[in-house]
Amino acid sequence: MKRELSLSGAARLLAALLIRNKKTFASAESCTGGMVASAAVGVPGASRFFAGGAVSYSDRSKTILAGVPAGTVRRYTAVSPETAAAMAKGIREKLGADYGVATTGIAGPTGATEKDPVGAVYLAVSSARGETVRRRVYGGGRRAVRLAAARDALLLLCGTAERETEKTIGSGR
Amino acid sequence: MKRELSLSGAARLLAALLIRNKKTFASAESCTGGMVASAAVGVPGASRFFAGGAVSYSDRSKTILAGVPAGTVRRYTAVSPETAAAMAKGIREKLGADYGVATTGIAGPTGATEKDPVGAVYLAVSSARGETVRRRVYGGGRRAVRLAAARDALLLLCGTAERETEKTIGSGR
Repeated sequence: MKRELSLSGAARLLAALLIRNKKTFASAESCTGGMVASAAVGVPGASRFFAGGAVSYSDRSKTILAGVPAGTVRRYTAVSPETAAAMAKGIREKLGADYGVATTGIAGPTGATEKDPVGAVYLAVSSARGETVRRRVYGGGRRAVRLAAARDALLLLCGTAERETEKTIGSGR
Repeated sequence: MKRELSLSGAARLLAALLIRNKKTFASAESCTGGMVASAAVGVPGASRFFAGGAVSYSDRSKTILAGVPAGTVRRYTAVSPETAAAMAKGIREKLGADYGVATTGIAGPTGATEKDPVGAVYLAVSSARGETVRRRVYGGGRRAVRLAAARDALLLLCGTAERETEKTIGSGR
Protein backbone atom coordinates (compact mmCIF):
# COMPACT_ATOMS: atom_id res chain seq x y z
CA MET A 1 0.00 0.00 0.00
CA LYS A 2 1.52 3.28 -1.11
CA ARG A 3 -0.28 5.20 1.65
CA GLU A 4 1.88 3.54 4.28
CA LEU A 5 5.14 4.74 2.74
CA SER A 6 7.19 7.26 4.70
CA LEU A 7 8.25 10.55 3.15
CA SER A 8 11.79 9.24 2.61
CA GLY A 9 10.40 6.00 1.18
CA ALA A 10 8.33 7.98 -1.33
CA ALA A 11 11.45 9.96 -2.28
CA ARG A 12 13.45 6.78 -2.90
CA LEU A 13 10.61 5.35 -5.01
CA LEU A 14 10.47 8.54 -7.09
CA ALA A 15 14.26 8.69 -7.41
CA ALA A 16 14.44 5.15 -8.78
CA LEU A 17 11.64 5.84 -11.27
CA LEU A 18 13.06 9.13 -12.52
CA ILE A 19 16.65 7.90 -12.77
CA ARG A 20 15.49 4.86 -14.76
CA ASN A 21 13.59 7.14 -17.17
CA LYS A 22 16.30 9.85 -17.21
CA LYS A 23 13.82 12.50 -16.02
CA THR A 24 14.15 15.35 -13.52
CA PHE A 25 11.74 17.24 -11.28
CA ALA A 26 11.59 20.60 -9.52
CA SER A 27 9.50 21.60 -6.49
CA ALA A 28 7.61 24.68 -5.32
CA GLU A 29 6.41 24.38 -1.75
CA SER A 30 4.25 26.54 0.41
CA CYS A 31 2.89 24.70 3.49
CA THR A 32 5.38 21.80 3.23
CA GLY A 33 8.11 24.46 3.16
CA GLY A 34 11.09 22.42 1.96
CA MET A 35 10.09 18.92 3.09
CA VAL A 36 9.65 17.70 -0.49
CA ALA A 37 13.04 19.10 -1.53
CA SER A 38 14.73 17.82 1.61
CA ALA A 39 13.42 14.30 1.04
CA ALA A 40 14.76 14.42 -2.53
CA VAL A 41 18.18 15.69 -1.43
CA GLY A 42 18.21 12.95 1.21
CA VAL A 43 18.82 10.48 -1.63
CA PRO A 44 22.57 10.36 -2.45
CA GLY A 45 23.29 11.63 -5.98
CA ALA A 46 20.09 13.71 -5.96
CA SER A 47 21.35 15.94 -8.77
CA ARG A 48 20.59 13.12 -11.22
CA PHE A 49 16.81 13.59 -10.78
CA PHE A 50 16.26 16.79 -8.74
CA ALA A 51 16.68 20.13 -10.53
CA GLY A 52 16.01 22.34 -7.48
CA GLY A 53 13.17 23.85 -5.53
CA ALA A 54 11.49 26.99 -4.31
CA VAL A 55 10.15 27.40 -0.80
CA SER A 56 7.51 29.95 -1.62
CA TYR A 57 5.59 30.38 1.60
CA SER A 58 4.87 34.08 1.11
CA ASP A 59 2.80 35.41 -1.80
CA ARG A 60 5.76 37.44 -3.04
CA SER A 61 8.09 34.45 -3.17
CA LYS A 62 5.50 32.49 -5.16
CA THR A 63 5.98 35.05 -7.93
CA ILE A 64 9.72 35.73 -7.57
CA LEU A 65 10.95 32.17 -6.97
CA ALA A 66 8.26 29.88 -8.36
CA GLY A 67 7.27 31.98 -11.37
CA VAL A 68 3.57 32.24 -10.48
CA PRO A 69 1.90 35.14 -12.33
CA ALA A 70 1.09 37.87 -9.76
CA GLY A 71 -2.52 37.93 -10.90
CA THR A 72 -3.06 34.23 -10.12
CA VAL A 73 -2.61 34.57 -6.35
CA ARG A 74 -4.64 37.81 -6.33
CA ARG A 75 -7.52 36.28 -8.24
CA TYR A 76 -7.69 32.79 -6.76
CA THR A 77 -5.94 33.20 -3.34
CA ALA A 78 -2.72 31.46 -2.28
CA VAL A 79 -4.50 28.27 -1.21
CA SER A 80 -6.33 27.24 -4.37
CA PRO A 81 -6.04 24.64 -7.15
CA GLU A 82 -5.16 27.40 -9.62
CA THR A 83 -2.20 28.65 -7.54
CA ALA A 84 -0.99 25.08 -6.90
CA ALA A 85 -1.02 24.36 -10.65
CA ALA A 86 0.74 27.64 -11.45
CA MET A 87 3.47 26.87 -8.88
CA ALA A 88 4.12 23.41 -10.36
CA LYS A 89 4.17 24.75 -13.92
CA GLY A 90 6.21 27.83 -12.99
CA ILE A 91 9.04 25.99 -11.25
CA ARG A 92 9.16 23.28 -13.95
CA GLU A 93 9.62 25.87 -16.68
CA LYS A 94 12.00 28.02 -14.62
CA LEU A 95 14.43 25.17 -13.97
CA GLY A 96 13.89 23.34 -17.26
CA ALA A 97 12.82 20.14 -15.49
CA ASP A 98 10.60 17.39 -16.90
CA TYR A 99 8.18 17.60 -13.97
CA GLY A 100 7.12 20.19 -11.43
CA VAL A 101 5.43 19.43 -8.12
CA ALA A 102 3.80 21.92 -5.76
CA THR A 103 2.00 22.17 -2.43
CA THR A 104 -0.12 24.93 -0.96
CA GLY A 105 -2.45 24.56 1.99
CA ILE A 106 -3.37 25.34 5.56
CA ALA A 107 -1.01 23.55 7.91
CA GLY A 108 -2.54 25.18 11.00
CA PRO A 109 -3.05 25.68 13.84
CA THR A 110 -4.83 28.78 12.45
CA GLY A 111 -5.66 29.98 8.93
CA ALA A 112 -8.91 28.12 8.14
CA THR A 113 -11.12 29.86 5.57
CA GLU A 114 -14.77 29.47 4.56
CA LYS A 115 -13.64 27.24 1.72
CA ASP A 116 -10.88 25.24 3.41
CA PRO A 117 -10.41 23.86 6.95
CA VAL A 118 -7.06 23.48 8.71
CA GLY A 119 -5.36 20.47 7.11
CA ALA A 120 -6.59 21.21 3.56
CA VAL A 121 -3.75 21.05 1.01
CA TYR A 122 -3.70 21.33 -2.78
CA LEU A 123 -1.08 19.12 -4.46
CA ALA A 124 -0.14 19.75 -8.08
CA VAL A 125 2.04 18.07 -10.68
CA SER A 126 3.03 19.64 -13.99
CA SER A 127 4.54 18.07 -17.09
CA ALA A 128 4.71 19.07 -20.75
CA ARG A 129 1.28 17.38 -21.04
CA GLY A 130 -0.40 19.67 -18.50
CA GLU A 131 -1.23 20.00 -14.82
CA THR A 132 -2.93 17.65 -12.35
CA VAL A 133 -4.26 18.96 -9.02
CA ARG A 134 -5.60 17.06 -6.00
CA ARG A 135 -7.19 18.40 -2.82
CA ARG A 136 -6.57 16.53 0.42
CA VAL A 137 -7.64 17.22 4.00
CA TYR A 138 -5.26 15.82 6.61
CA GLY A 139 -5.75 15.36 10.33
CA GLY A 140 -3.15 15.81 13.07
CA GLY A 141 -1.04 18.84 13.96
CA ARG A 142 1.03 21.16 11.78
CA ARG A 143 3.90 18.71 11.42
CA ALA A 144 1.67 15.73 10.59
CA VAL A 145 -0.21 17.71 7.92
CA ARG A 146 3.05 18.88 6.32
CA LEU A 147 4.67 15.41 6.34
CA ALA A 148 1.59 13.75 4.81
CA ALA A 149 1.26 16.46 2.15
CA ALA A 150 4.95 16.20 1.20
CA ARG A 151 4.74 12.41 0.89
CA ASP A 152 1.51 12.53 -1.14
CA ALA A 153 2.97 15.19 -3.46
CA LEU A 154 5.88 12.85 -4.24
CA LEU A 155 3.48 9.93 -4.76
CA LEU A 156 1.26 12.01 -7.08
CA LEU A 157 4.39 12.76 -9.10
CA CYS A 158 5.29 9.04 -9.10
CA GLY A 159 1.85 8.27 -10.54
CA THR A 160 2.17 10.87 -13.29
CA ALA A 161 5.71 9.79 -14.19
CA GLU A 162 4.66 6.12 -14.32
CA ARG A 163 1.60 6.80 -16.47
CA GLU A 164 3.51 9.00 -18.89
CA THR A 165 6.24 6.39 -19.25
CA GLU A 166 3.65 3.69 -20.04
CA LYS A 167 2.03 5.93 -22.64
CA THR A 168 5.37 6.70 -24.25
CA ILE A 169 6.20 3.00 -24.43
CA GLY A 170 2.70 2.27 -25.74
CA SER A 171 2.78 4.90 -28.44
CA GLY A 172 6.20 3.70 -29.55
CA ARG A 173 5.05 0.17 -30.36
CA MET B 1 24.80 25.36 25.34
CA LYS B 2 23.64 26.34 21.88
CA ARG B 3 25.37 23.31 20.32
CA GLU B 4 22.89 20.99 22.00
CA LEU B 5 19.85 22.67 20.45
CA SER B 6 17.85 20.66 17.93
CA LEU B 7 17.16 22.03 14.45
CA SER B 8 13.59 22.93 15.42
CA GLY B 9 14.86 24.50 18.66
CA ALA B 10 17.24 26.70 16.67
CA ALA B 11 14.36 27.70 14.39
CA ARG B 12 12.19 28.72 17.35
CA LEU B 13 15.07 30.73 18.84
CA LEU B 14 15.63 32.53 15.54
CA ALA B 15 11.88 33.11 15.05
CA ALA B 16 11.55 34.77 18.46
CA LEU B 17 14.60 36.97 17.82
CA LEU B 18 13.53 38.07 14.34
CA ILE B 19 9.88 38.67 15.27
CA ARG B 20 10.97 40.80 18.25
CA ASN B 21 13.21 42.88 15.94
CA LYS B 22 10.72 42.90 13.04
CA LYS B 23 13.30 41.35 10.69
CA THR B 24 12.99 38.66 8.01
CA PHE B 25 15.33 36.12 6.48
CA ALA B 26 15.59 34.09 3.28
CA SER B 27 17.50 30.84 2.67
CA ALA B 28 19.52 29.29 -0.15
CA GLU B 29 20.40 25.67 0.51
CA SER B 30 22.55 23.19 -1.31
CA CYS B 31 23.50 20.19 0.85
CA THR B 32 20.84 20.86 3.51
CA GLY B 33 18.33 20.92 0.65
CA GLY B 34 15.31 22.49 2.35
CA MET B 35 15.95 21.56 5.99
CA VAL B 36 16.59 25.20 6.98
CA ALA B 37 13.42 26.37 5.24
CA SER B 38 11.38 23.47 6.59
CA ALA B 39 12.47 24.21 10.16
CA ALA B 40 11.42 27.86 9.68
CA VAL B 41 8.03 26.92 8.20
CA GLY B 42 7.59 24.52 11.12
CA VAL B 43 7.04 27.56 13.34
CA PRO B 44 3.38 28.66 13.09
CA GLY B 45 3.02 32.12 11.51
CA ALA B 46 6.34 31.72 9.70
CA SER B 47 5.50 34.43 7.17
CA ARG B 48 6.23 37.03 9.87
CA PHE B 49 9.98 36.27 9.74
CA PHE B 50 10.61 33.95 6.75
CA ALA B 51 10.60 35.51 3.27
CA GLY B 52 11.17 32.24 1.36
CA GLY B 53 13.94 29.98 0.22
CA ALA B 54 15.76 28.40 -2.68
CA VAL B 55 16.83 24.78 -2.74
CA SER B 56 19.72 25.20 -5.12
CA TYR B 57 21.40 21.82 -5.13
CA SER B 58 22.44 21.97 -8.80
CA ASP B 59 24.82 24.60 -10.16
CA ARG B 60 22.15 25.90 -12.52
CA SER B 61 19.61 26.43 -9.74
CA LYS B 62 22.21 28.36 -7.73
CA THR B 63 22.12 30.95 -10.51
CA ILE B 64 18.43 30.82 -11.46
CA LEU B 65 16.89 30.60 -7.98
CA ALA B 66 19.50 31.96 -5.58
CA GLY B 67 20.88 34.72 -7.80
CA VAL B 68 24.52 33.54 -7.71
CA PRO B 69 26.54 35.03 -10.59
CA ALA B 70 27.32 32.19 -13.04
CA GLY B 71 31.02 33.05 -12.90
CA THR B 72 31.22 32.53 -9.12
CA VAL B 73 30.49 28.79 -9.23
CA ARG B 74 32.75 28.37 -12.27
CA ARG B 75 35.64 30.19 -10.68
CA TYR B 76 35.45 28.97 -7.08
CA THR B 77 33.45 25.65 -7.40
CA ALA B 78 30.05 24.98 -5.84
CA VAL B 79 31.50 24.03 -2.44
CA SER B 80 33.48 27.14 -1.50
CA PRO B 81 33.23 30.11 0.85
CA GLU B 82 32.74 32.41 -2.16
CA THR B 83 29.74 30.47 -3.46
CA ALA B 84 28.22 30.20 0.03
CA ALA B 85 28.50 33.98 0.49
CA ALA B 86 27.06 34.64 -2.99
CA MET B 87 24.08 32.36 -2.25
CA ALA B 88 23.30 34.15 1.03
CA LYS B 89 23.63 37.59 -0.57
CA GLY B 90 21.76 36.57 -3.73
CA ILE B 91 18.68 35.21 -1.99
CA ARG B 92 18.57 38.11 0.50
CA GLU B 93 18.52 40.63 -2.32
CA LYS B 94 16.15 38.61 -4.49
CA LEU B 95 13.47 38.36 -1.82
CA GLY B 96 14.13 41.73 -0.19
CA ALA B 97 14.82 40.14 3.20
CA ASP B 98 16.93 41.60 6.02
CA TYR B 99 19.12 38.49 6.22
CA GLY B 100 20.16 35.68 3.90
CA VAL B 101 21.50 32.32 5.04
CA ALA B 102 23.13 29.66 2.87
CA THR B 103 24.67 26.20 3.01
CA THR B 104 26.87 24.36 0.54
CA GLY B 105 28.91 21.30 1.31
CA ILE B 106 29.61 17.62 0.86
CA ALA B 107 26.94 15.57 2.62
CA GLY B 108 28.34 12.27 1.34
CA PRO B 109 28.66 9.38 1.10
CA THR B 110 30.78 10.38 -1.94
CA GLY B 111 31.98 13.72 -3.31
CA ALA B 112 35.12 14.42 -1.26
CA THR B 113 37.67 16.67 -2.99
CA GLU B 114 41.34 17.44 -2.39
CA LYS B 115 40.26 20.53 -0.48
CA ASP B 116 37.24 19.20 1.41
CA PRO B 117 36.40 15.83 2.99
CA VAL B 118 32.90 14.35 3.24
CA GLY B 119 31.10 16.30 5.97
CA ALA B 120 32.65 19.68 5.07
CA VAL B 121 30.03 22.44 4.83
CA TYR B 122 30.32 26.19 4.27
CA LEU B 123 27.67 28.23 6.14
CA ALA B 124 27.08 31.85 5.17
CA VAL B 125 24.99 34.73 6.48
CA SER B 126 24.39 37.97 4.59
CA SER B 127 23.03 41.29 5.82
CA ALA B 128 23.22 44.85 4.55
CA ARG B 129 26.54 45.03 6.46
CA GLY B 130 28.16 42.21 4.51
CA GLU B 131 28.71 38.46 4.53
CA THR B 132 30.02 36.06 7.19
CA VAL B 133 31.18 32.56 6.23
CA ARG B 134 32.12 29.59 8.43
CA ARG B 135 33.56 26.20 7.47
CA ARG B 136 32.53 23.16 9.50
CA VAL B 137 33.36 19.48 9.16
CA TYR B 138 30.70 17.17 10.55
CA GLY B 139 30.84 13.46 11.32
CA GLY B 140 28.09 10.90 10.85
CA GLY B 141 26.12 9.94 7.76
CA ARG B 142 24.43 12.09 5.12
CA ARG B 143 21.41 12.84 7.30
CA ALA B 144 23.48 13.74 10.38
CA VAL B 145 25.70 16.09 8.36
CA ARG B 146 22.69 17.84 6.82
CA LEU B 147 20.82 18.21 10.14
CA ALA B 148 23.87 19.63 11.93
CA ALA B 149 24.62 22.04 9.07
CA ALA B 150 21.02 23.27 8.95
CA ARG B 151 20.97 23.87 12.72
CA ASP B 152 24.34 25.63 12.71
CA ALA B 153 23.28 27.84 9.80
CA LEU B 154 20.27 29.02 11.83
CA LEU B 155 22.50 29.59 14.89
CA LEU B 156 25.03 31.57 12.83
CA LEU B 157 22.15 33.75 11.69
CA CYS B 158 20.97 34.11 15.32
CA GLY B 159 24.43 35.35 16.25
CA THR B 160 24.54 37.91 13.46
CA ALA B 161 21.01 39.14 14.18
CA GLU B 162 21.77 39.47 17.90
CA ARG B 163 25.04 41.33 17.31
CA GLU B 164 23.52 43.72 14.80
CA THR B 165 20.63 44.47 17.15
CA GLU B 166 23.05 45.29 19.99
CA LYS B 167 25.03 47.58 17.72
CA THR B 168 21.88 49.35 16.57
CA ILE B 169 20.78 49.89 20.16
CA GLY B 170 24.29 51.03 21.09
CA SER B 171 24.57 53.54 18.27
CA GLY B 172 21.15 54.94 19.13
CA ARG B 173 22.13 56.01 22.64
